[in-house]
Amino acid sequence: MSGSATSGSGGRLWVIGTGPGPAAWTTPETAAILEEATDLVGYFPYVARCPERPGQVRHASDNRVEIDRARFALELAASGRRVAVVSGGDPGVFAMAAAVMEAIDHGEPGWRGLDVTVHPGVSAMQAAAARVGAPLGADFCAISLSDNLKPWEVVVRRLTAAAEAEFVVALYNPASKARPQQIFAAFEVLRAVKRPETVVVFARAVGRPDERVTITTLGAADPGLVDMATCVIIGNSDTRTIERGAEREAWVYSPRSVAE
Amino acid sequence: MSGSATSGSGGRLWVIGTGPGPAAWTTPETAAILEEATDLVGYFPYVARCPERPGQVRHASDNRVEIDRARFALELAASGRRVAVVSGGDPGVFAMAAAVMEAIDHGEPGWRGLDVTVHPGVSAMQAAAARVGAPLGADFCAISLSDNLKPWEVVVRRLTAAAEAEFVVALYNPASKARPQQIFAAFEVLRAVKRPETVVVFARAVGRPDERVTITTLGAADPGLVDMATCVIIGNSDTRTIERGAEREAWVYSPRSVAE
Repeated sequence: MSGSATSGSGGRLWVIGTGPGPAAWTTPETAAILEEATDLVGYFPYVARCPERPGQVRHASDNRVEIDRARFALELAASGRRVAVVSGGDPGVFAMAAAVMEAIDHGEPGWRGLDVTVHPGVSAMQAAAARVGAPLGADFCAISLSDNLKPWEVVVRRLTAAAEAEFVVALYNPASKARPQQIFAAFEVLRAVKRPETVVVFARAVGRPDERVTITTLGAADPGLVDMATCVIIGNSDTRTIERGAEREAWVYSPRSVAE
Repeated sequence: MSGSATSGSGGRLWVIGTGPGPAAWTTPETAAILEEATDLVGYFPYVARCPERPGQVRHASDNRVEIDRARFALELAASGRRVAVVSGGDPGVFAMAAAVMEAIDHGEPGWRGLDVTVHPGVSAMQAAAARVGAPLGADFCAISLSDNLKPWEVVVRRLTAAAEAEFVVALYNPASKARPQQIFAAFEVLRAVKRPETVVVFARAVGRPDERVTITTLGAADPGLVDMATCVIIGNSDTRTIERGAEREAWVYSPRSVAE
């Protein structure tokens, strides 16, 4: 990790992700930052996963407005605190790293001189993929279904392009209480392009006690099973399942090769 | 981790990735598997990154034929060995997990009864992204440029679709001694669709002593700088740089929002 801030305040900001499940998926780099930080800032379920430390201040928020959380963390760092902004998964994949960068870009000029670093982690789609085999073994894309920040038409355009060009597709933020219908709409878009036999994985809370993994097909899938904690993976035309008998769960993989 | 193999041999196989750089990016789960395995199987630069352990057999290979390596590992596991198949990065992202699944799918029926698990890791694009800020902060895709396993026409089709639909694009396997021209051809494809001002990152060997990161634009980029160890990230139209003065490197990020 790099040295102290030129601001002279001693403050700094780390943008980290604990991984989507157990501590065994948190990198040692991130675990060390969690020990060193004076302050943790994050959405409360992610902060709750961090080990408690005496003297460390936990700013757990139920505020969904990530840019506000990013600004608050930057203000703390500028005041001399050593702040970790905590996401689940990887902070760079549909998480806080982009929000922190946006806050700096449009915020106090002095924030550009702060010592800010981003640290990689395991993202939800990777844990989901590992759990069932290797569905991301071919070219793939990751799309957030949330239209809080982009028009739904953009989501439709990207889903269609990804399906037509035979990317494996991982969907983040597929549903919430405020947006229960978008995963149904997304499946309509995908069903218009892809065959009903296409392999689909619903991987909910992988690595956590409430994990639930469903392997199904695009034709048979019930999008009503999908909630905020679910990563959805839709295969390409070549994605296959390997049956392993009644006692073992099937594997799913996307072959590395594409036929001539 | 789940129990012993039903084969009764005691053998098992873990598919792991050490992350793209330092041990601080290797998950504790993966580090524990490296301690428990009797045998490591992998491409030699990846095996070389693993700590040496007395009694552990290291099957480091310069064989680029991953399916042969996967079969060899499965044979070892079937014979009762406790085998870790080692990739750099995440084993599920353009690495050995898909090769192991293919080997099982087309191999000995008994291999389906083996205790095989895949474990997630940090992939190269995530380390590259973290190093420069948050370029993967919007919808993105990952494409392997190698045409060893798929026709070049498929690569062109996917690059074009990704560019037209405004995905951020991460390129894996962008060049090798046997394939020095494909990154030039890929840039031609992207330049036909995207603006020359589009932000491009060449992130070579991130986290390793020979790290070299270049932030440039699609119009100005020299694809001749790209080698096998480079992850290339091409922004969408909104991807921005944040200048931080002469003494600090610029940041790159892709805003989470898309304008109406």
